[in-house]
Amino acid sequence: MECLWLEDQKISVKNVPPPTPTKEEALIRLLLAGICRTDIEMLKGYRPFSGVPGHEFVGEVMHAPGDSSWEGKRVVGEINLSCGECTQCRKGRPNHCEIRTVLGIADRDGVFAESFTLPLANLHQVPLSVPDEAAVFTEPLAAACQILEQVRIRTTDVVLVIGAGKLGQLIARALHRTGCALQVAAKHARQKQLLADCGIAAIEPGQVSTGYADLVVEASGTPEGLDLARKAVRPQGTIVLKSTYSGAKDLDLSSWVVDEITLVGSRCGPFTPALRLLEKSLVDPIPLVEARYPLSKGDRAFEQAQKPGVLKVLLHP
Amino acid sequence: MECLWLEDQKISVKNVPPPTPTKEEALIRLLLAGICRTDIEMLKGYRPFSGVPGHEFVGEVMHAPGDSSWEGKRVVGEINLSCGECTQCRKGRPNHCEIRTVLGIADRDGVFAESFTLPLANLHQVPLSVPDEAAVFTEPLAAACQILEQVRIRTTDVVLVIGAGKLGQLIARALHRTGCALQVAAKHARQKQLLADCGIAAIEPGQVSTGYADLVVEASGTPEGLDLARKAVRPQGTIVLKSTYSGAKDLDLSSWVVDEITLVGSRCGPFTPALRLLEKSLVDPIPLVEARYPLSKGDRAFEQAQKPGVLKVLLHP
Repeated sequence: MECLWLEDQKISVKNVPPPTPTKEEALIRLLLAGICRTDIEMLKGYRPFSGVPGHEFVGEVMHAPGDSSWEGKRVVGEINLSCGECTQCRKGRPNHCEIRTVLGIADRDGVFAESFTLPLANLHQVPLSVPDEAAVFTEPLAAACQILEQVRIRTTDVVLVIGAGKLGQLIARALHRTGCALQVAAKHARQKQLLADCGIAAIEPGQVSTGYADLVVEASGTPEGLDLARKAVRPQGTIVLKSTYSGAKDLDLSSWVVDEITLVGSRCGPFTPALRLLEKSLVDPIPLVEARYPLSKGDRAFEQAQKPGVLKVLLHP
Repeated sequence: MECLWLEDQKISVKNVPPPTPTKEEALIRLLLAGICRTDIEMLKGYRPFSGVPGHEFVGEVMHAPGDSSWEGKRVVGEINLSCGECTQCRKGRPNHCEIRTVLGIADRDGVFAESFTLPLANLHQVPLSVPDEAAVFTEPLAAACQILEQVRIRTTDVVLVIGAGKLGQLIARALHRTGCALQVAAKHARQKQLLADCGIAAIEPGQVSTGYADLVVEASGTPEGLDLARKAVRPQGTIVLKSTYSGAKDLDLSSWVVDEITLVGSRCGPFTPALRLLEKSLVDPIPLVEARYPLSKGDRAFEQAQKPGVLKVLLHP
C-alpha cells in the first residue's frame, strides 16, 4: 500500500505491506487525514520519529477480528495507545500512560497511509450527519475542548487566543460558544476573515494590550507567542499553553510569582464533546480546509502546509 | 532613630529622623522584625532598592492621627500599599494594585527601624494569646496560606514541598493540617528535625522520585528547585512556585504541554487565616527562630541569615 514515510527529517512516498490488526485492533481504510503542526515540527526535528506520520483522520473499519460489529463503520480515533495497567492508566489518565505509544508521533505508525491499525478502544463512530471534511477535525477540536476541561471560563472573562492557524481557529470556535469576551491575535488576512465569518474579533499581535486578559490561550506554535501571552495576561490570570516546539524557552519566573500567573500545559482532549460540537453544527471547521492532496503528492502537501498562514491541508488515498 | 539602610547592595546601620504618619497611617514602634529570603535576594541585587528594608514585623501603634482607637494596639501589617482605584484594586486584587508600593521592597521604607508608618487599612490586631515571637511570622505564614487559596488540596493528594528553610517550614506546617500525604525535601539536619517534631516526613532532595506528586510546592529559593519540582510532579499535576530570584530560567516547555503540567505563581496571602492558625496553636513557628539581634547589629544579623540552613533571624530595637 502507499504511504508517507518520515525519516531523517525528510518526507517521502513509499510502498509498504498493509498492517495486520490484532484481536484488539481494527484495520482502517483512510478516507481523509489532516496535517497538523506537530507533523511539521517533527519534520523539523521536534522529536525523533521514523515511520508513517499522521494522527488526524477519518476512516472506515475494514476488518476487526475481535469484534466484527465495527466493520463498515466510519470512525475517528484517539491517538494515545495506553496499557490500561500502569499508575497513570489506573488513576484515570490513559492519555498519560507511562508506556504509551502515540499514533504517528511516538513508536507507532500513523495514518498517512492507505490503511492503518488502531485499537478498538480508541475508536469513535462518526455520526452520519458529519461529513468526512468535518470529521477529520475531531482530534484537534478535542484538543481545543481540553481547555474547557482544564480551566473554568466564565461569561465575564476576557479571553485572548494567540495564533489563528489550524488549532487557534478551532480553539477560538470552541471558546466562542462559552459567551466569553473573546479576541484572537491573528497575522494573516484570511485567518482574520475566517474569524470574522464566525463573529469572532481579530486583532494584530502588535495591538495586544498589557495585563488585561483573564485567560490567554497560546496556540501560535512559536516561542514568541508565550511572551505575548505573558504581556496580555492580568495579575492572577491564566495562560493555557498549547504550543510544542523544539528547544528551551527563557522565562523570568520571578515576575510570574510576583504577578501570581498560572500556566497550564494542555495537550489531547475528549473526542465525545468534539464530535457533539460537529454533529450539532456548533463548530464548523470546513472553511479551514486549504487544500487536498493524494498521498502520492504528500511531499507537495507538506510543502504547502509549511507556508505561513496556510490552514488545514488534507490528504486522501 | 536607628534603622538599617540598604543601598548599592550593602546593608548598614544609620540614624534618620522618625517618619510622620498621614491621617490614613499609623506610626508603629517595632517590637520584632524577621529577615526574609526576599531581603537577602535584594541584598544580592534581585531588585533595585535603596532605603530601609524589611517587611515582616510585629509592632505597637504609637500614633494614629486619623483614628486614635488604634493607639496602643499590637499589630501586624500587610505589605502591599494599594491605591483602591485602579483596575486591579476595583476587581478585588489590591495586592496587585497597578501603582502599589511594597513595604521595604518597592518605593516604601520598611520595618528594620525603631519606628515606621503603614496605612491603617493594612493593619491587623494581634490576638493577646499570640506572643511577639509567633506574631512576627504572620506575613510569611499568610504567604503559605495563599497556596490554599489558589489550589485545592485533597486529603488523598500526595504533596511535596521543596525546601525546608524559613518559608518551606511554614508551608509544610500549613499544608500538614489538610491531612494530605506530605513530604518535604530538606537538606539540613536541623530542618529535618524541626519537621519531624511536627510529624512531617522529610526526604533528601536526591531521594525524590519521578512523576509521583499530585502537587509540588517549590520554596527552595533556587532555580534548581523548579527542576526537582518538574521531576517530581505527576502528569496533569500542579507546581506552586514561591521562589523569587534574579535571572531567567530555561524551561523545556514542550514537555510541560505534553505532560499537561500546571504552574501557579504564588506570592502574598491573607493575614486573617494566618493569625487564626497562630491563635489556635494550629501552627507553631517559634521553633524556627534561629537568632535575635538588635538593629545596631543588623549587619551581623544579615551575615548569619545568609548562611546555608539558617532559619529565622529576628531583629529588635
